[in-house]
Amino acid sequence: MPELRKDIVIGRWVIISTERKCRPDQFALTQEQEVWAHNDFCPFCPGNEDRTPPEIFAIRENNSPPNTPGWTVRVVPNKYPALRIEEELKRRGIGMFDMMNGVGAHEVIIETPEHKLQMHDFSINELTKVIYTYKVRSIDLKRDIRLRYIMIFKNYGREAGASLYHSHSQLIATPVTPKRVKEELNGCKTYYDYKERCVFCDIINQELDSIKRVIFQNKSFIAIAPFASRFPFEVWILPINHNSDFDNITDNETIDLAEIMGWVLKRINIGLSNPSYNFLIHTAPSRYQRPGYWQTIDKDYHWHIEIIPKLTRPGGFEWGTGLYINPVPPEDASTFLKEIKVEKMEVK
Amino acid sequence: MPELRKDIVIGRWVIISTERKCRPDQFALTQEQEVWAHNDFCPFCPGNEDRTPPEIFAIRENNSPPNTPGWTVRVVPNKYPALRIEEELKRRGIGMFDMMNGVGAHEVIIETPEHKLQMHDFSINELTKVIYTYKVRSIDLKRDIRLRYIMIFKNYGREAGASLYHSHSQLIATPVTPKRVKEELNGCKTYYDYKERCVFCDIINQELDSIKRVIFQNKSFIAIAPFASRFPFEVWILPINHNSDFDNITDNETIDLAEIMGWVLKRINIGLSNPSYNFLIHTAPSRYQRPGYWQTIDKDYHWHIEIIPKLTRPGGFEWGTGLYINPVPPEDASTFLKEIKVEKMEVK
Repeated sequence: MPELRKDIVIGRWVIISTERKCRPDQFALTQEQEVWAHNDFCPFCPGNEDRTPPEIFAIRENNSPPNTPGWTVRVVPNKYPALRIEEELKRRGIGMFDMMNGVGAHEVIIETPEHKLQMHDFSINELTKVIYTYKVRSIDLKRDIRLRYIMIFKNYGREAGASLYHSHSQLIATPVTPKRVKEELNGCKTYYDYKERCVFCDIINQELDSIKRVIFQNKSFIAIAPFASRFPFEVWILPINHNSDFDNITDNETIDLAEIMGWVLKRINIGLSNPSYNFLIHTAPSRYQRPGYWQTIDKDYHWHIEIIPKLTRPGGFEWGTGLYINPVPPEDASTFLKEIKVEKMEVK
Repeated sequence: MPELRKDIVIGRWVIISTERKCRPDQFALTQEQEVWAHNDFCPFCPGNEDRTPPEIFAIRENNSPPNTPGWTVRVVPNKYPALRIEEELKRRGIGMFDMMNGVGAHEVIIETPEHKLQMHDFSINELTKVIYTYKVRSIDLKRDIRLRYIMIFKNYGREAGASLYHSHSQLIATPVTPKRVKEELNGCKTYYDYKERCVFCDIINQELDSIKRVIFQNKSFIAIAPFASRFPFEVWILPINHNSDFDNITDNETIDLAEIMGWVLKRINIGLSNPSYNFLIHTAPSRYQRPGYWQTIDKDYHWHIEIIPKLTRPGGFEWGTGLYINPVPPEDASTFLKEIKVEKMEVK
């Protein structure tokens, strides 16, 4: 059973998960790289549905039965979950230290039946189905009152932490509001208390005013290179209209998000020579688990997506300080990405 | 000129440093890996002293003049500094955003004249000289009242962010107290306000009591696998006697630190097949720049070293949440490292 442990000094929770328990000599990163590039057998390909845990959700347009081919997007529990859903949540102390058992969920969203297609190759329609699936799973899991936060993310490429090549994203639901999210929620609240405005709405307005860091925009979303980008070519995608919760996304907005995600990912892929990247959705925590001082979240928080190409490796300075050194000013990143020519995205 | 920019939502400073300005196609990580392994020309080797900026400090046992061979440890400014010492500190706003110019220092500590020797190969005497050099540079830089924090760190291996093979560590002095350090200082203060004891002293006592996570101990230092380790085989080294500031280290303690650092680094190198690693020294911020609420730092803070082997790559989940998934319980890491047999370290 995985467990959560709290760093008593800075209050950061850590998941100690021994599901993939391995010997120290199995840690060699080079081996993992090989697997990522050329795995012979792929558990995510159609026909191998029995090699994953039974599916939780799938988009099937031909009424095919669960756990058989015929799906376009398929969600399964992670075979080596960081957290598990089956247990009761228990907190306890070990001397001065705090821990709890690893209750949560860890799901894999298999984004396409095609082994070789990656997200930057997707049509708007294919991307729309993936985003719709995120929403379905997020809404479903938020009904479990033990779960405080749902993080949807994608690791593409070995530098980004991926171990399987077949295009997929992941969802981890945690019984704690993670530190990085809490900082963002608190920052938004502090700003709102002072200004009675959402800080992300103000960022959008300022960026639209100066233009320098705006990369792309459609009816519902804007993509910017954030003013204090930690990483070269970091991109944020924000809904233009204020909204705290990704789960509220409408069907039309889902299509617009698919368009802007595709726009950005294609340009990152072509302009930066197919780099590894992570993206993640930052959204409001579960409604059941908000302490009193977060009651204004719907007004002060603004969900968004962060896309981080992996072009540099954080070193000891970054790990030790949390202060990132970024060699590419976001204004240059924005100009560079805007100038990349790609074929028009298929709707299909 | 580098600049510091603040993320307005979570208050994190970022260094935008264009000293190594490069085109997007120069970001390919694979090229950097090659350089790390087989660089033909090494600017850190004796005889090439004119290929680095002029030296700031060196240990020379033969009265050789500066910037010539004959040194055992040599400190030079980083040729591509993240921050620069030459300017006046100016803060300004850009609309709603905050920035300041990149005042600071970025130095390289060349740890040995031998190109092929790495820190885990060093004798106690060689390591002692390196640690002594850290102290000399830290004390010197703290006289500059513009600088709030001095971070000494090492990146070993390409996965850890190193770009030159020749054994070296680095020092970056910043005009802000970095976020991660501030969190630790605040955590220590909160604990002290509640208990009137140093949290790290309490951790040392609890770990000595339970033994499970103690890796090695000598007269002055203890090495532990921390209870909430973020990374597999993460190790903390702490002075057993309470001390807030690395600069206070005595000559005898310096030798003891050399011994325990060598002990741990040799075992990580042998036991985990020469992994990349980072280490970093967490110490109190500059005395001139502590806000009033940090007046108890000398009592509540406890300097220490964090050693992080790079065996896993953080993915989107870790970046998005700050919640790390660690597949190796620290108790197992401690047992594993203790059981590794290495030759006795030379004093030399």
